[in-house]
Amino acid sequence: MKEKIAFIGMGIMGAPMAQNLLKSGYPLTVHTRTKSKAQAILEAGAAWADTPAQAARNADVVITCVTDTPDVEKVLLGEHGVIETARKGAVCIDMSTISPEATQEMAAALKKKGVQLLDAPVSGGQIGAIEARLSIMVGGSKETFEKVRPILETMGKTVTYCGPVGYGQMTKLANQVMVIHTIMSIAEGLCFAEKAGLDMQTTYDVTCGGAAYSHSLKVLGAKILAGDMKPAFRVDLQIKDLRLVMDFAKKISQPLPGTKLAMELLEKLSEQGRGKDGTQALMDVIRQLNRPKESRTEA
Amino acid sequence: MKEKIAFIGMGIMGAPMAQNLLKSGYPLTVHTRTKSKAQAILEAGAAWADTPAQAARNADVVITCVTDTPDVEKVLLGEHGVIETARKGAVCIDMSTISPEATQEMAAALKKKGVQLLDAPVSGGQIGAIEARLSIMVGGSKETFEKVRPILETMGKTVTYCGPVGYGQMTKLANQVMVIHTIMSIAEGLCFAEKAGLDMQTTYDVTCGGAAYSHSLKVLGAKILAGDMKPAFRVDLQIKDLRLVMDFAKKISQPLPGTKLAMELLEKLSEQGRGKDGTQALMDVIRQLNRPKESRTEA
Repeated sequence: MKEKIAFIGMGIMGAPMAQNLLKSGYPLTVHTRTKSKAQAILEAGAAWADTPAQAARNADVVITCVTDTPDVEKVLLGEHGVIETARKGAVCIDMSTISPEATQEMAAALKKKGVQLLDAPVSGGQIGAIEARLSIMVGGSKETFEKVRPILETMGKTVTYCGPVGYGQMTKLANQVMVIHTIMSIAEGLCFAEKAGLDMQTTYDVTCGGAAYSHSLKVLGAKILAGDMKPAFRVDLQIKDLRLVMDFAKKISQPLPGTKLAMELLEKLSEQGRGKDGTQALMDVIRQLNRPKESRTEA
Repeated sequence: MKEKIAFIGMGIMGAPMAQNLLKSGYPLTVHTRTKSKAQAILEAGAAWADTPAQAARNADVVITCVTDTPDVEKVLLGEHGVIETARKGAVCIDMSTISPEATQEMAAALKKKGVQLLDAPVSGGQIGAIEARLSIMVGGSKETFEKVRPILETMGKTVTYCGPVGYGQMTKLANQVMVIHTIMSIAEGLCFAEKAGLDMQTTYDVTCGGAAYSHSLKVLGAKILAGDMKPAFRVDLQIKDLRLVMDFAKKISQPLPGTKLAMELLEKLSEQGRGKDGTQALMDVIRQLNRPKESRTEA
């Protein structure tokens, strides 16, 4: 028999992920801060819960997919939180991208109640969530992971066990370190080409065809050429992830000067009110550096 | 009838490129500073010339593939240089990676003698040169480009016309801007993973499978996992290319803070005597940042 699932968080990622669970026949109860965001899935047959505690009451598996560390802490451990009602033997799967250390602390708190926590952050964006093609990076008990693997495979194409609790988050953060550099590669590379007066399509085709190739160049470079700043991933969420990176990097004493620089440049974009643009907007920050002396940052 | 070709520069790129021309039946005369480096191609049937001027005397097309701007200037315009003997209507193709501005100046000097210059820097490394799979970025007269296209296609798989003289070099430099960021992505991303205690193969597999993917991650990341610092591209040549980038970026007033940072980190590696290592050695510079306070750079 399929596990009863509670799903908390109906954002642009959570909503389609929950839909895929429902389609696969899992009995589903949902909760999210703004009930209107759950309307589609309620119409599709999910049950509604007024609080995380109510959602978790009869669940075998509780999935959280919210924004940041404090959101997960509130949902799992706060007032009317999952911990108040989760039964012994239940499994929590947190699919948000949050702090690895906070994850480990929450796992310890839940364990006292006999509840296992897996961290399972995802990569692949909204399209990946809709098409159930997410990459899911999982930390926690290997045994528990194997137990819930079919549930994860309902939402993702590549489900990878990364190690003990928190290791899914660490892997996601390493991934985000790499991603931001590939975004920097198009921001600086295409700005250089543009300012040099090169034909942008030719430059894109040539660089995509060789050693400079990256997923970001292909996808976000094409958006830049089309003048499209709509988000595949939002600037403000990228900044949130890079803050998690820099906090953890500090903890493990690993300076990351390039990531730090990229984050500062993204923060400029955010200060300009462009937090909801896609990360390809980083190109505009590099464009702006090229300005009269009094208003520009030396580089 | 096939054009008579003079090929100057028998380095790790030039030698296999010249071999491919010879194999395709082009009558070939070669010159290089160290004659022993030409031994293989002389045995394969090429003629030897003692100077660039002697090589160019009867050539329809003169190809140069040397290291840096001053080398090309010396070969083309210096004493016993190509300009002394090149006949009116001859075409020079410079396949080195050098300054776009110096290229334009040399083109002007050669034009006075009725000689056309195309800049045609390449990407694809030694393997690409050997297997005739280079990406070639060409600047200069479109008409001249079309005339010599079959020659270029003997050495490369993707031959792209980028614009007037110098535009091949500018495109190559834009390419190098992007490449260095993807190398930074593995240096910082894999260092973060390593320091966090993640399983490196799992991290590599997961990041290669998603939004963090880059050609550098795939190729150089695999070398790092194998502890292999042998060059696909040497640190000292990468620094040379990034100096060309920064010089040209200054000329067009386009600050590139990330590229500048990466170059400074590569220069540290060079100061440590590692100029002949592959660019994946950048990971070691990031590793070194994580050291006792007195000896480390804050980031």
